[in-house]
Amino acid sequence: MTHPWQDPALPAAVRAADLLARMTPQEKTAQLYGVWPGSDEAPGGDVAPLQHALSEGVDLAGLLPHGLGQLTRPFGTAPVDPAEGAARLGFLQERIRAANRFRLPALAHEECLTGFTAWQATIFPTPLAWGASFDPDLVKEMAAAIGASMRAVGVHQGLAPVLDVVRDPRWGRTEESIGEDPYLVATVGTAYVQGLQSSGVVATLKHLAGYSASRGARNHAPASLGPRELADVILPPFEMAVREGGARSVMAAYNDIDGLPAHAHHRLLTHLLRDEWQFTGTVVSDYFGVSFLESAHGLADSPAGAAALALAAGVDVELPAVRCFGAGPFDEELVDRAALRVLTQKCELGLLDPDWAPPATEAPVDLDPPHMRALARQLAQESVVLLANDRGLLPLAPGARRIAVLGPHADDPAAMLGCYTFPRHVLLDRPGVPMGVAVPTLLEALRTELPDAEFVTDPAAAEVCVVAVGDRSGLFGRGTSGEGCDAADLELPDGQGEVVDRALASGTPVVLVLLSGRPYALGRWADRCAAVVQAFFPGEEGGPAVAGVLSGRVNPSGRLPVSVPRGPAGQPWTYLAPPLGRHGEASNLDPTPLYPFGHGLSYTTYDWQAPSVDDASFPTDGETTLRLTVRNTGERPGTEVVQLYLHDPVGKVARPVVRLVGYARVPLEPGASGEVHFTVPADLAAYTGPDGERIVEPGALELRLGVSSADGDVRYTVPVTLTGPERVVGRERRLRCEVRVK
Amino acid sequence: MTHPWQDPALPAAVRAADLLARMTPQEKTAQLYGVWPGSDEAPGGDVAPLQHALSEGVDLAGLLPHGLGQLTRPFGTAPVDPAEGAARLGFLQERIRAANRFRLPALAHEECLTGFTAWQATIFPTPLAWGASFDPDLVKEMAAAIGASMRAVGVHQGLAPVLDVVRDPRWGRTEESIGEDPYLVATVGTAYVQGLQSSGVVATLKHLAGYSASRGARNHAPASLGPRELADVILPPFEMAVREGGARSVMAAYNDIDGLPAHAHHRLLTHLLRDEWQFTGTVVSDYFGVSFLESAHGLADSPAGAAALALAAGVDVELPAVRCFGAGPFDEELVDRAALRVLTQKCELGLLDPDWAPPATEAPVDLDPPHMRALARQLAQESVVLLANDRGLLPLAPGARRIAVLGPHADDPAAMLGCYTFPRHVLLDRPGVPMGVAVPTLLEALRTELPDAEFVTDPAAAEVCVVAVGDRSGLFGRGTSGEGCDAADLELPDGQGEVVDRALASGTPVVLVLLSGRPYALGRWADRCAAVVQAFFPGEEGGPAVAGVLSGRVNPSGRLPVSVPRGPAGQPWTYLAPPLGRHGEASNLDPTPLYPFGHGLSYTTYDWQAPSVDDASFPTDGETTLRLTVRNTGERPGTEVVQLYLHDPVGKVARPVVRLVGYARVPLEPGASGEVHFTVPADLAAYTGPDGERIVEPGALELRLGVSSADGDVRYTVPVTLTGPERVVGRERRLRCEVRVK
Repeated sequence: MTHPWQDPALPAAVRAADLLARMTPQEKTAQLYGVWPGSDEAPGGDVAPLQHALSEGVDLAGLLPHGLGQLTRPFGTAPVDPAEGAARLGFLQERIRAANRFRLPALAHEECLTGFTAWQATIFPTPLAWGASFDPDLVKEMAAAIGASMRAVGVHQGLAPVLDVVRDPRWGRTEESIGEDPYLVATVGTAYVQGLQSSGVVATLKHLAGYSASRGARNHAPASLGPRELADVILPPFEMAVREGGARSVMAAYNDIDGLPAHAHHRLLTHLLRDEWQFTGTVVSDYFGVSFLESAHGLADSPAGAAALALAAGVDVELPAVRCFGAGPFDEELVDRAALRVLTQKCELGLLDPDWAPPATEAPVDLDPPHMRALARQLAQESVVLLANDRGLLPLAPGARRIAVLGPHADDPAAMLGCYTFPRHVLLDRPGVPMGVAVPTLLEALRTELPDAEFVTDPAAAEVCVVAVGDRSGLFGRGTSGEGCDAADLELPDGQGEVVDRALASGTPVVLVLLSGRPYALGRWADRCAAVVQAFFPGEEGGPAVAGVLSGRVNPSGRLPVSVPRGPAGQPWTYLAPPLGRHGEASNLDPTPLYPFGHGLSYTTYDWQAPSVDDASFPTDGETTLRLTVRNTGERPGTEVVQLYLHDPVGKVARPVVRLVGYARVPLEPGASGEVHFTVPADLAAYTGPDGERIVEPGALELRLGVSSADGDVRYTVPVTLTGPERVVGRERRLRCEVRVK
Repeated sequence: MTHPWQDPALPAAVRAADLLARMTPQEKTAQLYGVWPGSDEAPGGDVAPLQHALSEGVDLAGLLPHGLGQLTRPFGTAPVDPAEGAARLGFLQERIRAANRFRLPALAHEECLTGFTAWQATIFPTPLAWGASFDPDLVKEMAAAIGASMRAVGVHQGLAPVLDVVRDPRWGRTEESIGEDPYLVATVGTAYVQGLQSSGVVATLKHLAGYSASRGARNHAPASLGPRELADVILPPFEMAVREGGARSVMAAYNDIDGLPAHAHHRLLTHLLRDEWQFTGTVVSDYFGVSFLESAHGLADSPAGAAALALAAGVDVELPAVRCFGAGPFDEELVDRAALRVLTQKCELGLLDPDWAPPATEAPVDLDPPHMRALARQLAQESVVLLANDRGLLPLAPGARRIAVLGPHADDPAAMLGCYTFPRHVLLDRPGVPMGVAVPTLLEALRTELPDAEFVTDPAAAEVCVVAVGDRSGLFGRGTSGEGCDAADLELPDGQGEVVDRALASGTPVVLVLLSGRPYALGRWADRCAAVVQAFFPGEEGGPAVAGVLSGRVNPSGRLPVSVPRGPAGQPWTYLAPPLGRHGEASNLDPTPLYPFGHGLSYTTYDWQAPSVDDASFPTDGETTLRLTVRNTGERPGTEVVQLYLHDPVGKVARPVVRLVGYARVPLEPGASGEVHFTVPADLAAYTGPDGERIVEPGALELRLGVSSADGDVRYTVPVTLTGPERVVGRERRLRCEVRVK
């Protein structure tokens, strides 16, 4: 006999409701938690101290008869052949199915920020590098490939992307973030969601919300945020990823916002996310985030109390543990609400279908196939930012003969890899275990790139000295960047400034290469270096990408997704500053960055012709189109990145002087021209007013076309006027500029 | 003929209303602005660059026929004999009266943070030193003396105290603040208000609100504050100073709070201040703060537009200019509302009385009489904090013979003086002009204190080496501390760390003395110094006070009003941290301070007996009393500072692990005992819940008696339980612990 829930012809919500009605309270609750099969088997491994204490042993045999909602990281923390991993996951799923009367499998999730975080899987560039590429289309393609590889081995959900807007680059998770501008984070992050989900893998937006604004950039510290900063800076990426990207899962943040922990934040997780944005997927906890309501935030005095708060606020799934959501009973209505969402998602993923089976795993699985490696290289190449090249020393080819390559990051594959990669997240501190994929170092790649050059170790004997410095990524104090690896200031870590000083002292022209997870203060060296190149953990093909930029094979087109400061102290600062106090007029601290958000040089030159505007006046519910022609006036093919900023001189609250509202990559052969059309809806001028409503006001605006966010990098200012009545805008609001490049 | 407004027998509000009804719109508006008679005469003087541009020339003759609300800093920026200054002010007042048909004088205001900021006036310790004294009674006495001296020369209003709670000690105005704890700031600040106003001078609470929470500690930068942090940390001192202190004036802050500038913040300046707290005085702008709404915040496109916003929000008086409030006409109701407040205040000050006259100034005026100098010394002595004395080297007397006194602050009177003193605020950069009062340096004071000692310059030849380092206070970049003198980090400024290093290298035991306006990171030196003494700009008697502590004449009783960090970076941090992220459990940054808030040593020892509690359970609208006996078990008289902290394990939002709710200074002769009674109302457990209401919840609490805010410095924990229903508390709420010392 077939029940409605088993009928693939019926809508998922109907099937899920039917199944829910047949479940006991215990079976419903069992759908709301997960187990981490590998967590007890990784002594000293990837479980943080705080998390480890909470990761109690689980009586799997006792749990399984009620079913199981989630499987956390089934590929585990040891290097396992992908086909073997898939087989193990399949075996575990069969065990789970066999034990419950509905034969339901668990929903299996894995990390996938810079690729599927499994052994031998492609390691893509870190999100800061995605931001630097200003190329959402390519990020989407990458995410689709990541999703396909996960789906092929039986994983249903990926815990990415991170949509936290960088507010203080000292934060260790800056490397996991896309940048300091909400529009850039929103557009690039949404592309990732669309790509991942196009392969049938659920994307998980994290962390809702405010995690990046933790006090003093300390991991888990409170976020001092008011409702306007939350609405206009922190939340826009989540809104776009939900409304345009159709994200199916959201993870709550560890931190509190103005005292209220995200896991207990009804307004955020239910009112805003579901009622306003019409999100219909699942809200999952961050690992042990429900427990933290009891053990760390002081909001509950028992695991059950913590669970009740989280369920009421809108958390549907406790990850990766049973501790709180397994401590019921709870209000049945809340349990039903959450279980219905979980079952609906399982149904959408096919897990309720009678013919569901784990993927077949007889054939070998290649998680790093050539087309993925090619994607990794392309994204890495687009993400390298040429910060300075005052003396025209770069590119090195074809002239360079004797090159010294120095610095702790010159010949280290780990220098390419961020925290959320298998080697840095899982293998860290396990010497001798192979990384799983080939990661050429910068030196190796340069040897390939410049076969005629001689690589020397004496600085003095070289014509040019490449100094590679940056971060060691890791977890919880085992790195200079990464989760829990927060920095007290933005001084180059590990005393690497001295390496740069010594190289400069030799008199040989220095090319400074940064391979890092955050921006570092470069004011001490920038003027004395011949060139400065910034890469953000560029992944397994990062070596060839950076070497390609140095050699000239690649014409750099990356742009800074975060400001690079002059000095190491005085944080936080980002370019989203209102006029008063922006440049330290009344303070002896001037936070003006050394290299601003959006900055990046090229080996060719571009001419921007004066733009035209279709309508210099348009209504507050209308739009206008800007047209700009850009010409490559140099001798190399290149890609210009045209940036559109909004300046709103008068409003009801203080707002940033400029903020990004559009951008376009324009690839141009030498001598060629391209036309960029920006169709700008008035909605992009919306901001949150004194009463908490998002408004579009009539009045004068400036649309500024520039090569960075700095005042001095504006190429053209187009004054426009919004006419008609002030509008309060809600979820009908358009979130982005339409861009066409011809 | 006598009109009602001239009748001293009628209530001030009645008289003011009668006068208002007789005024033209221009006459009403004229009461709402001021002029700064000296501002144009101080080229390169004390007017900040940003302010100077706004300080246009004023056509006094054209203005005066309509009357004049305010006179800004009539004692000016040049060293003027006090009697001569009073005579000039009187002359100006007569000119103002003669020109308007009501013969109304202006309300004259001056700065008075660390004493009347006039030449030859007593320079008291800076507010951080008041905080360190934990002695509101003495601060009240000081403020009464300050007020009397101002009143005697014709000044009606003083622009103090600063009630900003320190949130990031890098902020230059930290020295002007009382500390990082709202309860300490509230109680000490309220005492100042009561003292000043007891002399008939209007106190001005500043800055409402959030100025100290500016991003990156940069002066004028936005404050990222949510409503709960605002309510529970930033606003309590203002509430106590209004409700208990009866403050008659409040100054709006320059900054925006979450985008909304304080000068346009109706909820803050009207709803909270007047409707909730029942404030009936005047709200004045910070200097040019109304203009900033146009020129800096982008909230208006004209001076009149800025004025209209400020008036509507609740700003009554524009200081020190005519620029905005002189650009009317404005909504008559708003002008009437503000003018009525100003006239009521003038009436209260006697300025509407027919027999009003400026004070007679024939006799010489002594603004630094012996009783004020004695007060300055007593407060300075109580404010010196002995941070460390591991080897018992201190006190020096009577043993010390050969003493080296080194460091840039050892023999410099300016080292004692904060930014809001006449020499540092006004005379700065005018070499050769005498300071006006005698300020013994540390070296001079030590010579007096230890007449038998030999003071040498070779370190090596000395038995002990006193190294004095710290801040140069000043304005806008001309100092290391003070208004606009923000620090990028908490490294000792001006490379003074090297001075300490050199002294330590000599091998002679080093006593490190800090004379500063903020805490500095001492982790590099603390363990190697024989003793560490912290003074916060202790004023004209600071030299003798510090020397007295070094010699042993004074037994130190100061306690830290701000935490002293271990390392210079990683700010902000204060002790008011919730559990998650408090000590960097999940971060490689551990912000635990080197010396915690409340810490301070003595030359004697104290024994604390186990406390008793009257009622271990009491209702949420009740109170209980703790009784603690403290005995001086050493051989010197001394004063113990008993601190009472509240720990609330479970609540509806994340709250600081502990916060101060009471304290007592207990002076004890050797062998003597004192009994301290703390009567703790349940109201002190109130906090702002998720819905924005302030609540007192039933449940368990801990009252912790300790010698500092650090967990390890708790001497006794008294568990208590609040019973009965949860209460929402409003303005009937009790704000403080009653303390009795027997």
